[in-house]
Amino acid sequence: MIIVMKPAAPQASIQHVVSMVREAGLETHLSEGKEVTIIGVVGDKSRLQDTNLELAPDVEKIVPITESYKLSNKKFHPDPSTIQVGNTEIGPNTLTIMAGPCAIESEKQLLSIAHAVKAAGANFLRGGAYKPRTSPYSFQGLEEEGLLYMKHAKEETGLSTICEVISRESLACAIKYVDMIQIGARNMQNFQLLREVGKAGVPVMLKRGLSATIEEWLNAAEYIISEGNPHVVLCERGIRTYETSTRNTLDISAVPVLKSKTHLPVIVDPSHASGVWEYVAPLSRCAVAVGADGLMIEVHNNPECALSDGAQSLTFAHFSQLTQELKAYAQLAGRNF
Amino acid sequence: MIIVMKPAAPQASIQHVVSMVREAGLETHLSEGKEVTIIGVVGDKSRLQDTNLELAPDVEKIVPITESYKLSNKKFHPDPSTIQVGNTEIGPNTLTIMAGPCAIESEKQLLSIAHAVKAAGANFLRGGAYKPRTSPYSFQGLEEEGLLYMKHAKEETGLSTICEVISRESLACAIKYVDMIQIGARNMQNFQLLREVGKAGVPVMLKRGLSATIEEWLNAAEYIISEGNPHVVLCERGIRTYETSTRNTLDISAVPVLKSKTHLPVIVDPSHASGVWEYVAPLSRCAVAVGADGLMIEVHNNPECALSDGAQSLTFAHFSQLTQELKAYAQLAGRNF
Amino acid sequence: MIIVMKPAAPQASIQHVVSMVREAGLETHLSEGKEVTIIGVVGDKSRLQDTNLELAPDVEKIVPITESYKLSNKKFHPDPSTIQVGNTEIGPNTLTIMAGPCAIESEKQLLSIAHAVKAAGANFLRGGAYKPRTSPYSFQGLEEEGLLYMKHAKEETGLSTICEVISRESLACAIKYVDMIQIGARNMQNFQLLREVGKAGVPVMLKRGLSATIEEWLNAAEYIISEGNPHVVLCERGIRTYETSTRNTLDISAVPVLKSKTHLPVIVDPSHASGVWEYVAPLSRCAVAVGADGLMIEVHNNPECALSDGAQSLTFAHFSQLTQELKAYAQLAGRNF
Amino acid sequence: MIIVMKPAAPQASIQHVVSMVREAGLETHLSEGKEVTIIGVVGDKSRLQDTNLELAPDVEKIVPITESYKLSNKKFHPDPSTIQVGNTEIGPNTLTIMAGPCAIESEKQLLSIAHAVKAAGANFLRGGAYKPRTSPYSFQGLEEEGLLYMKHAKEETGLSTICEVISRESLACAIKYVDMIQIGARNMQNFQLLREVGKAGVPVMLKRGLSATIEEWLNAAEYIISEGNPHVVLCERGIRTYETSTRNTLDISAVPVLKSKTHLPVIVDPSHASGVWEYVAPLSRCAVAVGADGLMIEVHNNPECALSDGAQSLTFAHFSQLTQELKAYAQLAGRNF
Repeated sequence: MIIVMKPAAPQASIQHVVSMVREAGLETHLSEGKEVTIIGVVGDKSRLQDTNLELAPDVEKIVPITESYKLSNKKFHPDPSTIQVGNTEIGPNTLTIMAGPCAIESEKQLLSIAHAVKAAGANFLRGGAYKPRTSPYSFQGLEEEGLLYMKHAKEETGLSTICEVISRESLACAIKYVDMIQIGARNMQNFQLLREVGKAGVPVMLKRGLSATIEEWLNAAEYIISEGNPHVVLCERGIRTYETSTRNTLDISAVPVLKSKTHLPVIVDPSHASGVWEYVAPLSRCAVAVGADGLMIEVHNNPECALSDGAQSLTFAHFSQLTQELKAYAQLAGRNF
Repeated sequence: MIIVMKPAAPQASIQHVVSMVREAGLETHLSEGKEVTIIGVVGDKSRLQDTNLELAPDVEKIVPITESYKLSNKKFHPDPSTIQVGNTEIGPNTLTIMAGPCAIESEKQLLSIAHAVKAAGANFLRGGAYKPRTSPYSFQGLEEEGLLYMKHAKEETGLSTICEVISRESLACAIKYVDMIQIGARNMQNFQLLREVGKAGVPVMLKRGLSATIEEWLNAAEYIISEGNPHVVLCERGIRTYETSTRNTLDISAVPVLKSKTHLPVIVDPSHASGVWEYVAPLSRCAVAVGADGLMIEVHNNPECALSDGAQSLTFAHFSQLTQELKAYAQLAGRNF
Repeated sequence: MIIVMKPAAPQASIQHVVSMVREAGLETHLSEGKEVTIIGVVGDKSRLQDTNLELAPDVEKIVPITESYKLSNKKFHPDPSTIQVGNTEIGPNTLTIMAGPCAIESEKQLLSIAHAVKAAGANFLRGGAYKPRTSPYSFQGLEEEGLLYMKHAKEETGLSTICEVISRESLACAIKYVDMIQIGARNMQNFQLLREVGKAGVPVMLKRGLSATIEEWLNAAEYIISEGNPHVVLCERGIRTYETSTRNTLDISAVPVLKSKTHLPVIVDPSHASGVWEYVAPLSRCAVAVGADGLMIEVHNNPECALSDGAQSLTFAHFSQLTQELKAYAQLAGRNF
Repeated sequence: MIIVMKPAAPQASIQHVVSMVREAGLETHLSEGKEVTIIGVVGDKSRLQDTNLELAPDVEKIVPITESYKLSNKKFHPDPSTIQVGNTEIGPNTLTIMAGPCAIESEKQLLSIAHAVKAAGANFLRGGAYKPRTSPYSFQGLEEEGLLYMKHAKEETGLSTICEVISRESLACAIKYVDMIQIGARNMQNFQLLREVGKAGVPVMLKRGLSATIEEWLNAAEYIISEGNPHVVLCERGIRTYETSTRNTLDISAVPVLKSKTHLPVIVDPSHASGVWEYVAPLSRCAVAVGADGLMIEVHNNPECALSDGAQSLTFAHFSQLTQELKAYAQLAGRNF
């Protein structure tokens, strides 16, 4: 927030405003020009929302600088970032395809899926070893055993690997086995975990919270980056609305909105967004057309028997057909795939 | 809803269920097979939601046939419909581009826009003569004068024309001047108006209500078709959610959902959905990629001075660039454009 | 909106701003003081949202006057209004109880309910003669026949009567039979109908739209009042959210918000808001405690057989018990009941 | 979920269904009666949602038992629970008032507020030592120092104390100083933290997530109770909707809905729900009238200078006036206060 004082504002008025701001726990930076004094306010502007600064003597106008995030802000980093994961690049020149099962069920299953998605053109294997489940009585994942299978799948196929973490312990474990970690929707504002991922320094994909605003999402990214980890990729996975014909409502506009506000790459997850496998192919095409940097898609060797989210998983055949179809769209978007 | 009676259900049990249904004001169709009697229920199933029909004697199971809409239902009309408007076709083989100002401001303005959008490849001119405005003190449109300008624009350019109506009177007036009428979001459940549009028999584009479910939307279409007017096109224009970075949230998944439920064509309006002109081009590409049959886009000769919705209008140059870009996407979708 | 010019702003700068405003179709009122010129802008401020008036030469600051509604605005009418309907008063000194069936089914049914709710202390009989239904195949009401029964019920019991209208025709018909008319949620932004109700001059209860903001709602009231009809009562009936354990989400905070923004009375409808009869009693108590001026409650002689909304209707016994219970809450709120 | 087999179902059909269920990772309990075999399914029913069990041979019907939570379920624990915290009881016979600052700012401030809220009748002191903030650059709380002040305030006033925790570390620290811990909205589905609170065994207040359904919320409570900690209190604090005139939308219906589904006590937080101090008093009255077991209210010695959420904090005078007013409402609700 910038407070512009009136041309002939006396020192008393300037000091009054400065102390109002400081009393609110914020810092000020004075820029005294020849004609006008400008007071920059650093910190959480919401603390000032009830003070009628506008009404203070000799205040000319208040210019809000709405974004509280800085390191993820495009204003201070205009070029799109490219995140390097092993020998894979996520960014403006590529179309990244992450594919695999919702939950890792066995080594055999994971290897079979890994080979299939590799053959179809995916560059990342996804697979859940730690599953945050609504009910405590649901299957919670194979944990470290699942991570080990991910490592084997990587060794066999050369695919990069990504896995969700849900706590400090799972993070510490996962970074020994996989290339990139994922923060799920339910943990988007688990600030403690965000800071730890920031300290870990590993590439991370941050999913949007179930009803997070784009501004809250970029602030969550800021928690990671401000701890020294700039390797952040965002993932739009649908938001919660009143409409029930899809599991969530894919907020496809979030892609161009993010492209105007941040330099971070954006992935779209049509599987979780829709919850229905028939909609995954059209939503994947649309995500590439709108400018997404990649896709995260659930693929399963036998969707009818999947332990988790079978209804939204593609078969090998459907996934292969989809990646074929996406080539033309990637080309139109100027992306290697 | 279909009620399946148990194999040996006696007549008394069957009659008991039939009278429960009839007491709820619904009709029944009995289908007495050799082994099983099936009771079809016709009418609004919600009236039965509190009766525990399942618990009635000798009821085997209840099979909900969830959709209360029939004429718009793909189940009974599997092939996609093509709506003929003058010499224009809206349907699976074409990409329809409707473009023009939010509000008609003057004849000169409208003609200038009509020529520009025609040159860029649009086949429909849109323009508001009756504007439903939140405040009674806002500009409400030129009404019949505006419609007359639409007629002139059609004569000069050969474009088909579409205009929103908001009442019986504006409907009666509009059909004398334009080729297709539009029911706006606020009137999606103005059932009286829907019936009158049904009786009028003219091609109509029905926009989705601000927070209408897809099922409510198809039922609104059913109001029109059940009066004898099958020339209905749907238009997704964004739904209301908590996210404020766009004016509404474009529910892009509605396109594949509708394609699975109805045979009616679907148009996407990225201008009203986003409210921000910079997002119109990416959202247009994505709508074509996801399978939409067309687009409705606001174009203005001078967006900064538009009487309504300037922020979401494209300039002639941007619109022309967009239609160029859309050609490749239309081709991938197998549509003439 | 008020535009404050800088102290020494030359006439050229003032005229530039005035013409920017007028070009947007708005009127200006100049107030030229000794030191400062203030430009008042009359009309829909949203038309100016894209013009960067703040950046125009010699503009000191812009003070938004956010509300576009005036006649319903508490600022210009600080005392709460009392709406007289026959010999009934709706306002700050009374607790108005409107009760009756969702849909009028027969004369016998209506009279039986009328006597029961009268005995329990209600002062209004509600009953639907025109039902806006999602599906065209649902029961749409008895229409004029139902209105006639309402008239009879009034004659027999002395209750005031209220009935929903959905079109010009039903409005013209209803005002011959009932004391007050209701605009339902689906027609809250049927501006044509609002204007006609405004011209009719009869007392009207305006329900909140399914996903209307409070500001849109007050603007809808403004449509009615600006046609010369100040007899407007608002009715909160729940908004659409993601939560499905109730039919809608009762926005109980809307009552104090409205009390701070408007002088119009506010009624709460816990039956439609929750859709579940067990929740009607606690929500009624809470509505009185929060400051509502009345309640609209569905009561049915035989909820299990109701043609519409049986699940949310109270029996006579439950309604009578509730009105007994409400007496203490009305007393705490300083209201006659 | 209970699967009812047809009367004469052969063993082969029964075994087929059993294996379908087991293949989905769920357990079965067979109950073979004289006429009918019933198969109880234990586990996450959603895993079966895509298998068409209904279509399997000899299945008569499927009776969903919708709730996946058991220990928090009223069905298995019909009487309302009373949670003992020190010498305070939270439950059906009392009205619990938790009051204090959003964030603890200094010892002097906290003690001054503690004495004021004690004098006004509060039985709990609330105060934030760990603040989950949207931006990493906002004030994050005094942490252990703040907890120490809470301990002093308890010693001086005899109030019970409650404090939010955001991680394993803050939990371990907090239980040394305060009587009850709080899980905030952002951590409602931080399942790791829920489990740890379950193991810690301390009284806990679980706030509803920003857009959590009531079912998700009760499942979150289940995570805590299933680890052996039954001392759980729920807190409704508003949900995220499109309406912006309040910070969140208080879902007041959640109180009667919870009362019908769970035996756990329910507290309402009108301060966070509305974000506006003027609305706190009416919303508090309405929460007591609807059946809440208590209130959590922000009180500050100087709201204009509060480091966090000043706009929603009551002054001492307003809080004292409110507690006076609530006495009559508590009496009507049959609660000691």
